[in-house]
Amino acid sequence: MTLPVETWADLVRAGDVRAISRAITAIENHQAAAEELLRRLFRSTGRAYLTGVTGAPGTGKSTLVDRLAAYYRKDQQQVGVIAVDPTSPYTGGAILGDRIRMQSHASDKGMYIRSMATRGFMGGLARATAEVALLLDAAGKEEVLIETVGVGQDEIDIVRLADCVLVVLVPGMGDDIQNMKAGLMEIGDIFVLNKADREGADRLEQQLMAMLALVMPRDGWHPQVVRTVASESKGIEVLGETILKFRKHFEASGERERKHLEHWKRRLLGLLESRLVERVLGGAGGEARLAEMAKDVAERRKDPFTAVNELLRESGVVA
Amino acid sequence: MTLPVETWADLVRAGDVRAISRAITAIENHQAAAEELLRRLFRSTGRAYLTGVTGAPGTGKSTLVDRLAAYYRKDQQQVGVIAVDPTSPYTGGAILGDRIRMQSHASDKGMYIRSMATRGFMGGLARATAEVALLLDAAGKEEVLIETVGVGQDEIDIVRLADCVLVVLVPGMGDDIQNMKAGLMEIGDIFVLNKADREGADRLEQQLMAMLALVMPRDGWHPQVVRTVASESKGIEVLGETILKFRKHFEASGERERKHLEHWKRRLLGLLESRLVERVLGGAGGEARLAEMAKDVAERRKDPFTAVNELLRESGVVA
Repeated sequence: MTLPVETWADLVRAGDVRAISRAITAIENHQAAAEELLRRLFRSTGRAYLTGVTGAPGTGKSTLVDRLAAYYRKDQQQVGVIAVDPTSPYTGGAILGDRIRMQSHASDKGMYIRSMATRGFMGGLARATAEVALLLDAAGKEEVLIETVGVGQDEIDIVRLADCVLVVLVPGMGDDIQNMKAGLMEIGDIFVLNKADREGADRLEQQLMAMLALVMPRDGWHPQVVRTVASESKGIEVLGETILKFRKHFEASGERERKHLEHWKRRLLGLLESRLVERVLGGAGGEARLAEMAKDVAERRKDPFTAVNELLRESGVVA
Repeated sequence: MTLPVETWADLVRAGDVRAISRAITAIENHQAAAEELLRRLFRSTGRAYLTGVTGAPGTGKSTLVDRLAAYYRKDQQQVGVIAVDPTSPYTGGAILGDRIRMQSHASDKGMYIRSMATRGFMGGLARATAEVALLLDAAGKEEVLIETVGVGQDEIDIVRLADCVLVVLVPGMGDDIQNMKAGLMEIGDIFVLNKADREGADRLEQQLMAMLALVMPRDGWHPQVVRTVASESKGIEVLGETILKFRKHFEASGERERKHLEHWKRRLLGLLESRLVERVLGGAGGEARLAEMAKDVAERRKDPFTAVNELLRESGVVA
């Protein structure tokens, strides 16, 4: 079925699940239609509140996100969940987990859940995630939860999309909180001490508080620590209230605006990059020419800088 | 002191520590001189063997890398260590650890150690790491160890540089090996079960073997598991021998050549991207224009796709 883009956009705005799912697939596959759709939907965006949830594998992020989603649903809010897994670029692992998670919310039309994994080296998972968040925003999801594994730059880029960032920790991971990298400490607005009924929770909280005391408050906000046992739904309400408190603080201070500006600078830059590369290599034979150059370089017949200059000259794209 | 690039290149080739350190700083800061230098050094590269070491925080990677470096030094090999920390984009944390690590090898001229962290959003840590690896290669380092935290796409990009990838695990991290993400399983050539004297090591090894049995051997190589207690230098010799075994297997099969080709394709693409963006935004006022566009987009006066098209048209770069 070919759907006129305007109709498709209307269906997305109305929260139609099939239209949303098709749009996400189009985004993941870099289809031209996705851009056309997002262009039309863009003015309907800007209302969703984006909460990023990150932490090492095994911290119970998925359960936490599910419980937080349920908390918002109880309040009649429309919820979108994007579970990003930058670590499975090769397998369909994320998709399986997705299906299992979908089942428990299958009957709830106010909730949309989708997993994403990396595809292709010209893709860019952070970009796709950002576009899906825009889409869910246009579809009327008021709370969008973006869940991602980990500690890398890619995850940092992903959670940077969010208005509020939760970093999830559990007692007994690794030897010491010293192992928690500076990057995570710096991006966290709220630290969730999950599995807080476990041994070592008090010690972890003390260490965390000691470290947070050293972090400069951003715009008057001191990162807070919330204890949860997500598997038993404990602490979720306090967490929800802390997020709201952060949101109110943030909106009053103008920090949110500044963050959005930074966000759009990065986004435009990324879009610019992929546009330009497409023009140089997107034509027939572009891929083959790149491979040929790579061979020359790998065999040290040419240095990489000279190779790129030649590609640019040949393409005629650069004046 | 201004140094003619040719002299600088000669000093790097001779392994001069000051010349190498200055070159790395130039690479990190995207100085034009770095490119000029690497262009000249490129034909002296291609001899180093690159071993990537990755794993979650707390697995003892740094200690393992130090012991492996010492193992190669005992064999009179020249060693370079690049410790990449994509998780501290904001702090000087990596640098401190660097200084501490340098001290224990300060008197050894056959060993060069350097930490790197992310700088700037136009940077690209994987690119800088790759360039530093080239530099150390030209400087005569026969074994280059690239250590990186983690599980994200950025780390995967970094370890993909390597000829051989070690994934480090320890017993008792998280609940289960299921938490180890598919991406790491797929990139590992050798799995190092570190802190193997801890409780749970046997169970972890069994789980790991069961999972690896499901992974398709790449080019006849079945990923291997090596048990170590790096802090007591246990298992390092077996690890070194396993790396050598992999290297011999890999070189005989032609897989190394294929991997290098893929590597250079990615590198050329990245270089192309940054070149193009520089031409669009590198001029006076480019940054300000980007900020202006970002503001229009953030305030929904313009959609991001239209904004980028306007930037391209204005720049005159694209015909």
